[in-house]
Amino acid sequence: MNRVYNFAAGPSTMPVEALETAAKEMLAYGTSGMSVMEMSHRSKMYIEIFDETEAILRDLMHIPEEYAVLFLQGGATAQFAAIPMNLMNGSGKADYVDSG
Amino acid sequence: MNRVYNFAAGPSTMPVEALETAAKEMLAYGTSGMSVMEMSHRSKMYIEIFDETEAILRDLMHIPEEYAVLFLQGGATAQFAAIPMNLMNGSGKADYVDSG
Repeated sequence: MNRVYNFAAGPSTMPVEALETAAKEMLAYGTSGMSVMEMSHRSKMYIEIFDETEAILRDLMHIPEEYAVLFLQGGATAQFAAIPMNLMNGSGKADYVDSG
Repeated sequence: MNRVYNFAAGPSTMPVEALETAAKEMLAYGTSGMSVMEMSHRSKMYIEIFDETEAILRDLMHIPEEYAVLFLQGGATAQFAAIPMNLMNGSGKADYVDSG
């Protein structure tokens, strides 16, 4: 079957190599005997995936050490809620600019 | 390789059949030419997955029609934050019980 490419900001097309690796490891990641999706997020093996991913991102995007890398759920929608909610600082009130 | 079973509340062990299906469809879900992970969450095909999943859950767990089914990210941690934050009702203040 021909691949169909989704050029949206996200979800969007992923590299075939990444999908093939995900498929190959779906029943057993490394020596774990389980899928990554079945693994405790606090396990040594999962934390290694996490640390390696952060290191690759820092290298690829030249992220300096004084910046934290956060892996967050919810995509853009959650971020657009989280940022103003954190800036509200517990007051329950906020101003906003309607830019048209 | 022998399967290793994670009996935690989540993430935890998934049925082999589900993992095998996920692996098989990783490069192309149905006739879409793409992985589910690459697909717009507003596409017809994705909404069909969503609707079918809700119908299966309602059948399996006998969820009555007057109850909504919400698919939420973040797991238990996010829910334990979301519930009190919604109950605060914009005041920025809350009481809580320390049950020991």
